[in-house]
Amino acid sequence: MRVVAGGRQTDMVAVWYEGGRVRFIDQRKLPGKLEIFEASGYEDVATAIREMVVRGAPAIGCAAAYGMALAMKQGADTSRAAAALRATRPTAHDLFYAVDWMLGRGEQLEPVEAAERYTGEIVGKCRKIGENGASLLKDGDSILTHCNAGALATVDIGTALAPIRIARDQGKQLFVYVDETRPWLQGSRLTAWELTNESIPHAIIADNAAGHFLKDDVDCVIVGADRIAANGDFANKIGTYEKAVVARENGVPFHVAAPISTFDFTIPSGSGIRIEERREEEVTSFMDVRVAGSSERARNPVFDVTPARYVTSIITEAGVHQPSAISALKGLSGGE
Amino acid sequence: MRVVAGGRQTDMVAVWYEGGRVRFIDQRKLPGKLEIFEASGYEDVATAIREMVVRGAPAIGCAAAYGMALAMKQGADTSRAAAALRATRPTAHDLFYAVDWMLGRGEQLEPVEAAERYTGEIVGKCRKIGENGASLLKDGDSILTHCNAGALATVDIGTALAPIRIARDQGKQLFVYVDETRPWLQGSRLTAWELTNESIPHAIIADNAAGHFLKDDVDCVIVGADRIAANGDFANKIGTYEKAVVARENGVPFHVAAPISTFDFTIPSGSGIRIEERREEEVTSFMDVRVAGSSERARNPVFDVTPARYVTSIITEAGVHQPSAISALKGLSGGE
Repeated sequence: MRVVAGGRQTDMVAVWYEGGRVRFIDQRKLPGKLEIFEASGYEDVATAIREMVVRGAPAIGCAAAYGMALAMKQGADTSRAAAALRATRPTAHDLFYAVDWMLGRGEQLEPVEAAERYTGEIVGKCRKIGENGASLLKDGDSILTHCNAGALATVDIGTALAPIRIARDQGKQLFVYVDETRPWLQGSRLTAWELTNESIPHAIIADNAAGHFLKDDVDCVIVGADRIAANGDFANKIGTYEKAVVARENGVPFHVAAPISTFDFTIPSGSGIRIEERREEEVTSFMDVRVAGSSERARNPVFDVTPARYVTSIITEAGVHQPSAISALKGLSGGE
Repeated sequence: MRVVAGGRQTDMVAVWYEGGRVRFIDQRKLPGKLEIFEASGYEDVATAIREMVVRGAPAIGCAAAYGMALAMKQGADTSRAAAALRATRPTAHDLFYAVDWMLGRGEQLEPVEAAERYTGEIVGKCRKIGENGASLLKDGDSILTHCNAGALATVDIGTALAPIRIARDQGKQLFVYVDETRPWLQGSRLTAWELTNESIPHAIIADNAAGHFLKDDVDCVIVGADRIAANGDFANKIGTYEKAVVARENGVPFHVAAPISTFDFTIPSGSGIRIEERREEEVTSFMDVRVAGSSERARNPVFDVTPARYVTSIITEAGVHQPSAISALKGLSGGE
């Protein structure tokens, strides 16, 4: 991805291997500071995933692949490393998929080479998602997106942001409404940062304002996904469900962009997806400043499930699909 | 309202007159500090409204009434005072209603007495709203509320919180989901503070999580209103529209609680309601800490319009009404 820092433009990815370590753009520090977090063993990688140094389902998968590579290279107990990485976060399917992929293929390949192949495939799929999804965007469109499903979430290019990047490269003028995405502010901190680096026009809005703009101003919604069930129901960042309901109510197309590794065909419907609930302080505080009274309690589910009936299309590396047609993807990469 | 501060329980209102000055609980400082803002002239009252020392449509109306009283008492130009107060915020109908009420009746009464009568009537109407609305709440119910339509928004008791207070006094066990209500966080800062002072069980949630809890956990939604058009469409805090759409989608009753002074029968539908857009920094920063990158722009509409078709009932001091039946309220207090 294009990164403009200190007046210079560079090209970076969210996660990479260099000099025996896995390196991450520390997403907790953006956009204020561009800091690199270094992991020298799989335990550090597990910490990076758990503490959200890296987030976004595909990027979590790549991080886990690199974590397994470190474990294999360093002669650690691979089943122990797999268990530690799997235990970091429950909702993203890619995490489990990547660990299994490394366990299954890492022995035929040098481990770091295997993780790089996995990551390269993810990025290649994102490019395909961008090419497939760009056809859905018209010159002059305004697009609403929720959370960050950009390069930071997928190592490079993104899922939801991929069609926007590619359509812009095709010369289409676009405008992006960026939900700030409480509680972790992935929208105002990360998506806005990526769009600014790419010089794509956009405005940050409070999550509450999405409905207001969906009435007249937004031409389509594109979001990512953390896990997609066999019937097309999908888990994504908390708030996605509200946006999907209000989009349909206003006749605004609602697209989900995700690599096929996000599909979990072992789960028949969204009710089988486990929803992570994180620390209350993410809600009662704002960037570590206490907002609510000291005795206040909060509930903090960080994903929700959107039923397939609200989804206009699912954009994958294989094409643009009706949710009712995704069973055809079973057996392609990622569908066990 | 009951306020617990420094280990002592006291009884306070949001706005009152004492010693020649209008005094406000400074709502910008809650819940961290309980500070009193003092206004010695109508200009200070205008500042208090504009800067959100006081907010909430009925409380803004009472503040404006006291501001007019100060102007009259001090021999200021009343039409100039009226213009200054009307110019503070555009959306709440009560503001305009209260200024006109003072211009029309303030001369027969001592001005401060007139403002106190106006305020006393608002609080009396809130009590009636509470009694009327409490019948809609069952023992064991979980209620979702958005923004703060409590005592802080109405001087005492509240609109949306009034039925909850009264139902609790009737012995009903209730649980309240409190939307944090970005960007100004009226929910996590003000509503949670009021509920804690009243020992009513509750949890703060990110606005994004409301849809998730509306699926299975919430029995009804109650919100306030800033202006209600003749057809029942209404303006309220940004995000209200999304909650209303998702509530209906899940078959959850959605109630609006407001005094009849909130109705503006001169406006046929919600499209005639002017929506205030406030400073971008309310979205891009928090407590003077920049969240988004320094060059980021935001859109910040602070109200939205919810069409009447999403409303189950409107609770006023006169009863519980179907939105289709509100024309009968025309001619009662507040309907010009």
